Amino acid sequence: MSRSDLSQNVCTVARTVEMVGETWSLMILREMFLGSRRFDDLQRRTGCSPHLLSQRLKRLEAEQIVERRSYSERPPRHEYRLTERGRDLWPVVIALKNWGDRWLDKTGAPPIELTHKACGQITRPSMHCSACGEPVDARSVTVRLSPKMARDRATADR
Amino acid sequence: MSRSDLSQNVCTVARTVEMVGETWSLMILREMFLGSRRFDDLQRRTGCSPHLLSQRLKRLEAEQIVERRSYSERPPRHEYRLTERGRDLWPVVIALKNWGDRWLDKTGAPPIELTHKACGQITRPSMHCSACGEPVDARSVTVRLSPKMARDRATADR
Repeated sequence: MSRSDLSQNVCTVARTVEMVGETWSLMILREMFLGSRRFDDLQRRTGCSPHLLSQRLKRLEAEQIVERRSYSERPPRHEYRLTERGRDLWPVVIALKNWGDRWLDKTGAPPIELTHKACGQITRPSMHCSACGEPVDARSVTVRLSPKMARDRATADR
Repeated sequence: MSRSDLSQNVCTVARTVEMVGETWSLMILREMFLGSRRFDDLQRRTGCSPHLLSQRLKRLEAEQIVERRSYSERPPRHEYRLTERGRDLWPVVIALKNWGDRWLDKTGAPPIELTHKACGQITRPSMHCSACGEPVDARSVTVRLSPKMARDRATADR
């Protein structure tokens, strides 16, 4: 299976991975969540090459994750903004950050600190159950595949 | 900046992205969270080529995200298990799944359904504030960079 075939996959993880599961797309998202909107800022602050950055932004725009907005007509200039669909990828970036803060950071002081506006406290958002509100991790859930997904896997196993 | 330079980045998102922010590594993680442990199963169920799969598993093993365990001496056979460090990447996969379920699934029935063992209910884990327990999203937090991270970005901006 090629990477692009994943877009046809029944699994929504696979399809999301195909869309944004890639170094520079994730770095662009991080940077946009930190507030960068202009091509040059995104380029310098992610370290992505201009060519790759332009390619990735086009893809993210085609997927309606970012949108281009004009901010000057003369000279023509535009900036990039996350759409609602794009902002909804925030938990992906936060999950990557949490893991890095826990397993890769030796300083004990995370490079990015979040404060929850509503409660005013420093926060390290984590996954909680949507039904009971308690924290959940890999071991606290059981998994059930939909009939379509189960068929898909059975076919692969043949 | 090349992809590998990200591993030296101050930002823990960048360093995590460098390690696992890649199509097949994320697909391997999904598959291991679904319970697959053997090379052949991982290969068929992710659709990854044997060559790439072997390469990615070696990298994940080197990063102590997966470990190889022998399950037969004659013939010699081993399987792959997630380490604690690897299991802690679960929120990344769940965040990708949630996004896909919301934005890419047209059926309304997610291909993978999770049940929270403790409360017995179907769950769609989401990010909550570690301080007050309320749900959080991109707009409910403010961001502060550590002095080191701020210096790093100021250098890039020069």
